[in-house]
Parts: sequence; C-alpha cells; structure tokens
Amino acid sequence: MGMSLGENIRVTLFGESHGPAVGALLEGVSPGIEIDIEILIQDLESRRPGRRLLSARAEPDECEILSGVYNGKTTGYPILLLVRNKDAKSRDYGFLPDHPRPGHADLPEAERTNGAADLRGGGTQSGRLTLGLVAAGSIARNLIGDAMVEAHCSQIGPIKGRIDGTRDGEACDVLNCNDSEAAEEMFALVKALRKQGDSIGSSVECCISNLPIGLGEPWFEGLEPALARGLMAIPAARAVEFGRGKDVVRMQGSEHNDAWGIEQTPVGSNPDGALGGMSTGAPLRIQVHFKPPSSISKTQMTLHLPSGEMRELQIGGRHDPVIAPRAAPVVEAVCRLILADLMQLRGAEK
Amino acid sequence: MGMSLGENIRVTLFGESHGPAVGALLEGVSPGIEIDIEILIQDLESRRPGRRLLSARAEPDECEILSGVYNGKTTGYPILLLVRNKDAKSRDYGFLPDHPRPGHADLPEAERTNGAADLRGGGTQSGRLTLGLVAAGSIARNLIGDAMVEAHCSQIGPIKGRIDGTRDGEACDVLNCNDSEAAEEMFALVKALRKQGDSIGSSVECCISNLPIGLGEPWFEGLEPALARGLMAIPAARAVEFGRGKDVVRMQGSEHNDAWGIEQTPVGSNPDGALGGMSTGAPLRIQVHFKPPSSISKTQMTLHLPSGEMRELQIGGRHDPVIAPRAAPVVEAVCRLILADLMQLRGAEK
Amino acid sequence: MGMSLGENIRVTLFGESHGPAVGALLEGVSPGIEIDIEILIQDLESRRPGRRLLSARAEPDECEILSGVYNGKTTGYPILLLVRNKDAKSRDYGFLPDHPRPGHADLPEAERTNGAADLRGGGTQSGRLTLGLVAAGSIARNLIGDAMVEAHCSQIGPIKGRIDGTRDGEACDVLNCNDSEAAEEMFALVKALRKQGDSIGSSVECCISNLPIGLGEPWFEGLEPALARGLMAIPAARAVEFGRGKDVVRMQGSEHNDAWGIEQTPVGSNPDGALGGMSTGAPLRIQVHFKPPSSISKTQMTLHLPSGEMRELQIGGRHDPVIAPRAAPVVEAVCRLILADLMQLRGAEK
Amino acid sequence: MGMSLGENIRVTLFGESHGPAVGALLEGVSPGIEIDIEILIQDLESRRPGRRLLSARAEPDECEILSGVYNGKTTGYPILLLVRNKDAKSRDYGFLPDHPRPGHADLPEAERTNGAADLRGGGTQSGRLTLGLVAAGSIARNLIGDAMVEAHCSQIGPIKGRIDGTRDGEACDVLNCNDSEAAEEMFALVKALRKQGDSIGSSVECCISNLPIGLGEPWFEGLEPALARGLMAIPAARAVEFGRGKDVVRMQGSEHNDAWGIEQTPVGSNPDGALGGMSTGAPLRIQVHFKPPSSISKTQMTLHLPSGEMRELQIGGRHDPVIAPRAAPVVEAVCRLILADLMQLRGAEK
Repeated sequence: MGMSLGENIRVTLFGESHGPAVGALLEGVSPGIEIDIEILIQDLESRRPGRRLLSARAEPDECEILSGVYNGKTTGYPILLLVRNKDAKSRDYGFLPDHPRPGHADLPEAERTNGAADLRGGGTQSGRLTLGLVAAGSIARNLIGDAMVEAHCSQIGPIKGRIDGTRDGEACDVLNCNDSEAAEEMFALVKALRKQGDSIGSSVECCISNLPIGLGEPWFEGLEPALARGLMAIPAARAVEFGRGKDVVRMQGSEHNDAWGIEQTPVGSNPDGALGGMSTGAPLRIQVHFKPPSSISKTQMTLHLPSGEMRELQIGGRHDPVIAPRAAPVVEAVCRLILADLMQLRGAEK
Repeated sequence: MGMSLGENIRVTLFGESHGPAVGALLEGVSPGIEIDIEILIQDLESRRPGRRLLSARAEPDECEILSGVYNGKTTGYPILLLVRNKDAKSRDYGFLPDHPRPGHADLPEAERTNGAADLRGGGTQSGRLTLGLVAAGSIARNLIGDAMVEAHCSQIGPIKGRIDGTRDGEACDVLNCNDSEAAEEMFALVKALRKQGDSIGSSVECCISNLPIGLGEPWFEGLEPALARGLMAIPAARAVEFGRGKDVVRMQGSEHNDAWGIEQTPVGSNPDGALGGMSTGAPLRIQVHFKPPSSISKTQMTLHLPSGEMRELQIGGRHDPVIAPRAAPVVEAVCRLILADLMQLRGAEK
Repeated sequence: MGMSLGENIRVTLFGESHGPAVGALLEGVSPGIEIDIEILIQDLESRRPGRRLLSARAEPDECEILSGVYNGKTTGYPILLLVRNKDAKSRDYGFLPDHPRPGHADLPEAERTNGAADLRGGGTQSGRLTLGLVAAGSIARNLIGDAMVEAHCSQIGPIKGRIDGTRDGEACDVLNCNDSEAAEEMFALVKALRKQGDSIGSSVECCISNLPIGLGEPWFEGLEPALARGLMAIPAARAVEFGRGKDVVRMQGSEHNDAWGIEQTPVGSNPDGALGGMSTGAPLRIQVHFKPPSSISKTQMTLHLPSGEMRELQIGGRHDPVIAPRAAPVVEAVCRLILADLMQLRGAEK
Repeated sequence: MGMSLGENIRVTLFGESHGPAVGALLEGVSPGIEIDIEILIQDLESRRPGRRLLSARAEPDECEILSGVYNGKTTGYPILLLVRNKDAKSRDYGFLPDHPRPGHADLPEAERTNGAADLRGGGTQSGRLTLGLVAAGSIARNLIGDAMVEAHCSQIGPIKGRIDGTRDGEACDVLNCNDSEAAEEMFALVKALRKQGDSIGSSVECCISNLPIGLGEPWFEGLEPALARGLMAIPAARAVEFGRGKDVVRMQGSEHNDAWGIEQTPVGSNPDGALGGMSTGAPLRIQVHFKPPSSISKTQMTLHLPSGEMRELQIGGRHDPVIAPRAAPVVEAVCRLILADLMQLRGAEK
C-alpha cells in the first residue's frame, strides 16, 4: 500500500519498468481546474531518458489522460495518467534474481515478496516510475496558488553549481543545472566516469517561494516532515536538508535566529522558510542528496544465490551515471504535490 | 489533523504545554502485548527536564494508562497515555502574541489559527509534547521483534562523540551521549553558552540493528521516507541522513556499492542498512541535525506587532540550551513507532 | 484500528466499560470554534443511564476537556474528552469468559483477541462507549452550519410514534420519543417486559434538514454510505433505511421519482433528501433498527466453555430493556459528526 | 476523494460513463496471489449490459490488467484494471445540464462541481463504474480464504424469490435469480413495465458463509458497518439489513437471542452471522434494497433550469428497468473486497 503520497491530494503510482505501462492516479483535485497539455508534455520531457549522457532508453512517453478531465478541465474525480512502456529490453536482466546487484534492492525485494516481484529493470523501484510523479506534479502546478518551485542539479561529485547562476547552453539543459560554468565541468566529469563504467553521487537544490505564511502544521503534517518523506522516497536519495541544513549544528542561537522584520517575515542573510512545520514567508531552501547509481558496468564481485558463492557480475542495460539531473524535475513534482496536499488541507480547516 | 504518525500502529499526540495535560493515544496494538511499567517510567525519565544544565521545568511526569490495558496486557483497543501538567509558569509568556520570538513559530502559528492557538510555552509545538511520543515509543519496544534501536547525542557544536564509545559518568547521563570524553567537553561548552544566555546546535545519531531483511517498501512506505517524516517532525530538526548520508555526493558507484556477502547481507566498511526503502540486514545508521534552540535569554531585536516596530525582546522562562541530549530518546521512540507500523503492515501482507 | 470515524473530522473512541475511563479524541476541528459547556452537559444527560426504566447504572458522567480548547475556543488541535468510570460493578460479570452470553459478542471477542480483551460489562463494546460519541457530537453541533439533526425513538415492539408528534410528559423524556401518546404505551410495554426479565426491539427515526444542496459525494464518501457505516456501528443496530427505505422495492419509477421543483429541490409527498450520495435540499429521513438487548435476566441455556456443555445462564448486572431511547442521542451525534466530516471535505475542495 | 473503498485492500474507481475508460486501481494485494483470467471474464460477463430485458448498451468490456501482475501472479504492487468505453451514445444526453432528471443526481452533482462534472450517461455515478468494482472483486476471490459469498436478485416489486431455490432457465440467468419460478414471474413483470416506459424497485439478498469466528471488530471497522458503507454506495441502494433485519424491532430478547451451541457457533432457526461487528461462525445474511431506476422513458414534468419553469422531459438512452439483477454481482464484489480488507487487517494484528 506504499505507492500513495498525500491525503487530500493523493497521487498513487503504479506500473513496472518492464510491464505494460506506468502511470499515476491523482485524486482529490477540485472540479474545474484547467489542464494544460503543453506544459504536461514539457514537464515529462524534462525527466525523459534518451538525452545525451544519460540512460539510453528512448521512450516517447506519450501520456494519456483517461479519466477525471472533461472539456479540458478537471471533473473532481480521479485522474488516470497512463504511459505505455515500449522500449524495455528485458533480456538485459537475465542475471536476476540469481545474482542480485550490489547497492540495489533486488535481494530485499525478492525476499519481501517471496520471489513474486517483477525485478526486470528495477520493477516498481525503477526510476521509470517517476514518470507518473512528474505527470501528476505537472497538474499540481495549478493547485498551489502563487507558490513557485524551482529545482536544479546543484552538485555532482565535488562540483557545485549555483541555483541563481546563468542557465545557458546544452550542458545546463542536459543536466538540469542552473549554472553554466559548473555544468560544463559536471558534464566532463560524468562523461569520464561513464567511460570508466562508473557512476557518481549528486545533489538537487530546490527553492520554494511565495508560500503564504502559516502553511503546514506543527508535527507530522508539517512542511518539513511531509517534504522529507516525499523526497526521501525518490530512488537513491540519502539525505535531505532544510534551510541551513546540517550547518546549524555548529551555530549558536544568537547567530541562527532570524528576527521577524516589519513585513512579518524573517530577515537575515539566509532566513528560514519554515519553522515548526509552517512556512514563514521567506523562501524555503531544500537540498536532497543522491548516492551514485548502483548499476555500473564495471565488473563487481557479489553473492551468487544458487551457488552461495561470491562471483563476478557484469551489468548490461541502460543506466544513468548520475541521478540529480533527472531527479531535479522529480523533486519539483514531489514538492508541488505536497504543497497542493497541505493547501487543500488548510482550505478544509478554514 | 497533523498530530498522528503511522497507519497500522498509529500514535496521536494531544495537549498543550500550559494546558491541563499532554499525552498520546496509541492505536493498532495487537491484543495480549505485555506492558512493563518500570520501563515506561525509565523511558520517560530519560527525556525529562529538570536535570542539570537542561530546562529547569521540573515535572514529575506521572503517566496514567487510562484505556486499552487490562491485567498488564494490551486489549487491542486504543491506549490512552495521559500526563497532567503541573509546573507550567504561564506568566513567563506575557510577551505573546504581541512580540513573537525570532526563530520560533509563534507568528506563523498565530496567523494560521487566526489567533486561537494557545501559544504559552510553545503550545502544541512545545518539546513537552514529545512526552506522549516517548511513552508510546516505550510500548512500541514490544512491537518490533528483535530489532534494536539505540540513539545518542553525537555532536554539540564542533564536538563529536562516538556511538560506540564508553558511556560513563554524569556528563554522559545528562547529555545522553555514549562517549565520556566528548561528553565532558560538550558539558563544558553548554555550560559556557548557558552563562552567555545563548544556545547551540547539535546532532543525534541512531543505529537500528537486527532488522529482518526486506522490511519496508519501495516508495512512500519505505524505511527512509517513513523515518524521515517522523524524525523531521521533532521540533528543531533541520536535516536527516541515512547510511553514509551527505557524503555519498562525492562517492563513485564502485566505491559506494556494497557487495552482497554470503550471509545475504551487504558487506563492506559501512554498508547500507536500507536500500530502496527496505532493510538489507546490515545496521541502519541515521543522523538527525537540530538547530540551536530559539529561546535564548540574550536580548534580541525583533518585530513588535502592535507598534509595527522592531523592539528589544527579553525572553524569560526555562529553556534548553541544546536539543540533542533530550531529543535522543525521542529519536528512539519515533524509530520504534515507525518500525512497529511497518512490521504490522508487513504482517498484514504475509 | 477500528475505533475512528471520519477522515477530516475524526473521532476516536477509547476506554472500557469497567476500565478507568471512557472518552473520545476529536481531531480536525478548525481553530476558533466556540465550545458551549452547558450544551455538552445537556447532551451527555440525554444519553445517561440511571433514568427510570433504563439501566440502573448511575454515573455522574463528568466530562473533562483536557486539550485542544483554550479560552473557551478550539485551538485546532486534538480535543481530548475524558470521563472517569465510577459505578462499575465488575463482580456481576463473574460468568465471563467461561459462559458467553447468547446474542452477545463475548465469544467472538475473546476468540479474536486470544482472551486479552476486557469483557467485563461488554468491555469496549459496551454502550458506555457511546458517551465519547455523544460528547464529540455535541462539539460537532458547531461544525455543521445551518444543518439540523433531530432523532427520536420512533418504535418499540409494535408501537410506533411520530417524529412530528407532541413531545410532552415524562414518558417522552425518558424514552426520547416525540409522540406523547405512543410514549405512554411504549412505557407500559417496556415496564411489563422488564418485569418478565425480557427485552424488546426498537427503532430510531432521524431527520436531517437544512443541508446545502450537493453535500456528499457519489460512491464511498456519499451521505448514505457514510451515515450507514456510522449508524450500523452503534451497538445492536441491525438495519438502516434512507428516504422511503425498504418500501421502494414495491414502487415504480414513475411513482418514486420526485420532480425538481422551481426552488431547485425535489417536490412530492416524501421527496428524497439524498440522491447518489449527495443532498438534494429536501430533508433526509433515516431509520435505524435495533435488536432487543441481549442481556436479559431470564434464564437461558447456552454453551459453557470449560465443560463443553449447554448450561443455564442467569445474567445479573444492570441492563437496558430497550435500545432506541438511549440510542436516539447517539444517532444524532453520529449524524452530526459525519456531516461535519463531509462539510470539512467539501470546504477542502472548494 | 470518495472513490476508494478499504484501507488494507483498497479499491479506487475511476472513469466516466462517456469518457475514454473506466476501471479500478486495486492496492494492498499481497505478492504471489494467482490471477485467473477466465474467472475475471466470467465475473464481468455476469454484470454486463446488453442482455435481454436490461440496458441495450452493448460493450464487449475487455478488461486489461496493466500493472501489478507478473507471470500470472500479483507482485504486491497496485493492480490497474482498465476497460475502454466504446458504445457510449452521448447525443442521448443533450438535455443535460439544463433539464435535470427527476430522481437523478444530475442537479446536485452540477451544483457541487460548479458545472465541471461530466454528466453524460450519469458520468462517474453511472452504473458503468461498477465494472471496476466487479473486476477488483473478482481478484478478491483469492483474498478471502474459505469464505463464500453468494448474492441473487431476491425481489422485484412484490415478487420474492428464494436464495436456496432452483436456479434453472434463462429468466434465472438474465435476472441473476436463484428461484426459477419467481424468476419467470419477475421476467414477465419487468417486460410489462418496460413496455410502459416505467421501472420497478428490487432487492438483492446475499449470504456470506464460512467466515472464521471473530472476523471484524467492534465499532467502525465492524463487519456490518463496513458492509453497510460499501453496499449503500451502490447506485440506487436505499436500505440495508443484516440478519433478521428490520424484523427485530418486534422481537423480544428471549426470542431473538441465539444460544451458543456446542460447536461454538450460535444455534437457532436463523442465527446471527455477526454480533457487535464480528462474525459468529453462522452464515451472515444481508439484504440490500434498490429504488426503481430513475431514468424512465415515460414523460415527466420537472424543472427546466434556464427558463425556471416546470417542463416536460422525455429521456432517451438505454436504461435498465430494474437494478437488482445487475446489482447482484456488484453486491458480491463489494462483500468480497470488504472481507479481504478486514482479513488483511486481522492478519496485521495477529
């Protein structure tokens, strides 16, 4: 039952990487919301594999809207977003389930499901499932009022890019990075690692602005808890930070506290966008850190189940050497869906 | 509606810092589970204010179990855990709501509730609400099979302590720190800051071991997403890391990937305890980072609402100069409750 | 986990008949709603045992509000409503669990909980648990806008009373019946049966008026499904009817269909208050039918578990000879809570 | 958000009668459950329109399983069941939304959704949505252990049929009635009413047997509350009865109480299959009563919105003259889904 996010605006993902289809069911959207197909197509394009450097799986990703929309507007009923799978190459996964990949969930998943899960291409854990998230998140653009969500690939290995940099050139585009100088370096690094059959860790930075003051709640429906849950569910996420994040550990209260300014928002060099689960009116800065993708073409020694021995494993298939570039639009989608959910809840209580 | 955590084992917090009571309603516990009152008392003691260095509020914290337990065992019905408030000093909060504290949620909370919230002592956002969490988490000890959860204060400001250090002496006790050498230094630092009327950031490290392989699910009911949500809901949490956390950004796949060893668990120097939302059989390492407490006695300039001007604010009351020592048992409680929830879910599907 | 009703306005019952306390936790109430203690006391009084004819258990039923209310208004946080048990006589239940009562859930409950349930006085299935429902329903009076909910005891055995009758005299009061003539007859019947050590079936009729058109939803969050669930959860309920109820089976469409009148509500002799889950603007008529209480003092032959034989059972204790009089305020409470939940949901989607 | 039934086994309906597709998303099914396509096809056939006497809409109803099934077994992930719409004739609904049908939810639905709902063919309230329920219910056959669910059309107008009668002949087949003699009479009655352009009320009787003792819970997750909610959500349902239903009102406790027999189940002429929300081990008898279908071809006077006048309405399109024959398999599906949900929950708590 773990494929749903949100209570008032609820998105449920379905599908398997090498099954007939993937997609999402989006529930709770009010009647009468306009659906902009052009933006939906554009959002799906931004996470699409088949771009240079990234996974070579080339899917046209035609997304059908099969329910809940009538005359270009939502009806208030569940919206089914469906994308057929077309370019799956299942023969690349012949080593499963016998020879589970290091750093992958093949083995726990097979264990958990007593062998019934479809492991091909990562099955339901495949990054391909993010397609439904991005499609649903695109519709959520119209459910978050004036709030703005912007994410980019902020770091690959040691190379950092600024979210307020200049987005210019192909490297920025391919990597979803806002800093053209950094993007060129990142591009070169990823290319080199790919050649070595290796992969690299990365980060997404996201900025949420224009939130009304007091969105979210203390405790478990707070902005940070809700976002942390949704963002940590993106495959390969390992850490999430809000505001000044981990740096706060070395700060004193007198240094960290932001005064409330005369506009009734916090002032300071880098004020907190959320306090106690609620928005303050200042922009909310989020960082999500991703491990290097586990599927690498370098030969690895790992357990071979039937023999009970460590054996060499050589993984074929098409895999991304880095996560953040394609995760950036997913981070945006998750943030929009969660904001929509919290705003719907707030509407209920007013 | 944001005061509940978990779906199968659900804990709902209630109460206000300066209201008549705080506590928790714990639902979903199977019938026939033994309740050990001695351990409950001990768990509550470990988070209690009134210890040296920390908040001077001295509550005896007598916890009543008012339903769901019969003859020392659970009946399967909701368990009401109630603690009366006795030592609240509301006059310390006369400056609210007019002069909201920097770094505190007073202003967004007043805004969100149109002034109806009880802001005294932080109201429902007070650390005092963690009492219900710790009480419920104590009962959850019997709901997680062989799993072990251990948390300690791992860092205060720049001083780090080892979770596998020697726990010895009063500083370790007061700070819930496993490393006696570090604890002495931390103790001195906190004492100095307290004297200055200031506060300091801190971290809790938590290790979950003996998990069965395959606990949790991919996506939104995954171990990491569920834990991230629960842990980020602890007041003042700013970041959460799993496994090698933020360090993964600079790692390559060939370095980060842990081979599956012949025991069917990952091997390596620091193997991941969770992959794709599911436990691997290796210990799961978690770090939670807390900002310095916002309530400091140093004078601060901040918005005075009635006048619309920035004015000096002097906060009285009893406040902790650091979060992690008292958050460590809360982190443990949250982890236990979430593990219990995921295990119940897994039981359902088997 | 079955003690909760509602998703947006959620009430969770707790407690056992002979445990320390019973009550309810009410979640989702918006901040700033006024709480009228006088009406709460009056509502609790209307379901109270200790009245003539009905159960002789005399509880003062002092209801404490322990959280979620500040300065006479709700804070938006969970409201804990607690009533201590004082007059329980557990020695009356010495025959349990060995000699389960006919028509009672003692045996399935013991089976389901492997003997851990507290069966004394019906445990969590006791009518005493309705106390929390009535307390929560009293607060829900302020959450349903202009809607009016009125229920009365409409039938006992063969004697029927009119909801639009004259409520006058002690029999009306004791029986919560709106028809004084019928009430006198009912009163005599119940008295006679009580003398015989027997009990009798009964019905509650409820009328919900002033609903806005279009409240509720098609399918599972519809008015009728939501109400049916809540009302069938009242102990001893056996059937529920909406509008013309079971009589529709013999009607033709041309006879049953209500035309839409110029006020945009259905017109006719008895128009439907709900269609397809949604309110039409006409009053919604509901009937709930209750079996005769199972606890009778007449001697009954039934299975004695330790011996495996059928043996005579003589039940002592204090029991109602009829359900509807005390169920009428519970029906009202359930209806109010469900309307509040649906209205909150609608608010969310607007 | 009201299109979901169940918490542990959750079915969510989507689609509109005249939109591109209808179907269901089924969540919570354990991995490794076999899917029998032949039984799925047969179940869908039993509710299919296009049979003699009933609605003339002829849909082949090819149901695709697009996720959650691999190698003929469930994977544990959401199962998407999709049926494309092919034979919708939307021009029959040109009178909407201006001239809402008596007895139909057109007007409240238009009001509730500010005109955004797709009203054609009843939109999301169409009986066509039951297709997803029946498909999901077919899969639930493998989720309910030894329990047996059997429903038939037990009454049309004044004509009653026995559930333990002889099912023989075309009338039994077309009407899903177990009593051949009654079915012939029902058949003649429905034919006559159809000729008159009228419709008739009807009932479904359902018997659930082989339940383990103690399934369900007291209060809101009880067997009867859960079933009442699900069954009252079937379009046109007006009443639901359990056990001896409404007849209990005239019974005395000494007559109604079933003794516990030496097999630890209740004995008597018609013992209760559920007590206090839990199964007793005796068969559980349920009756659901349906109003006559509102769409009749007879001319009706009703409000015409643009003119604000009462005007004659003549409804074309293809409509059933009676509900129960096609509702019987839907009642079975709903019962199976709810039993599966309660059994999953029970599994969780054991």
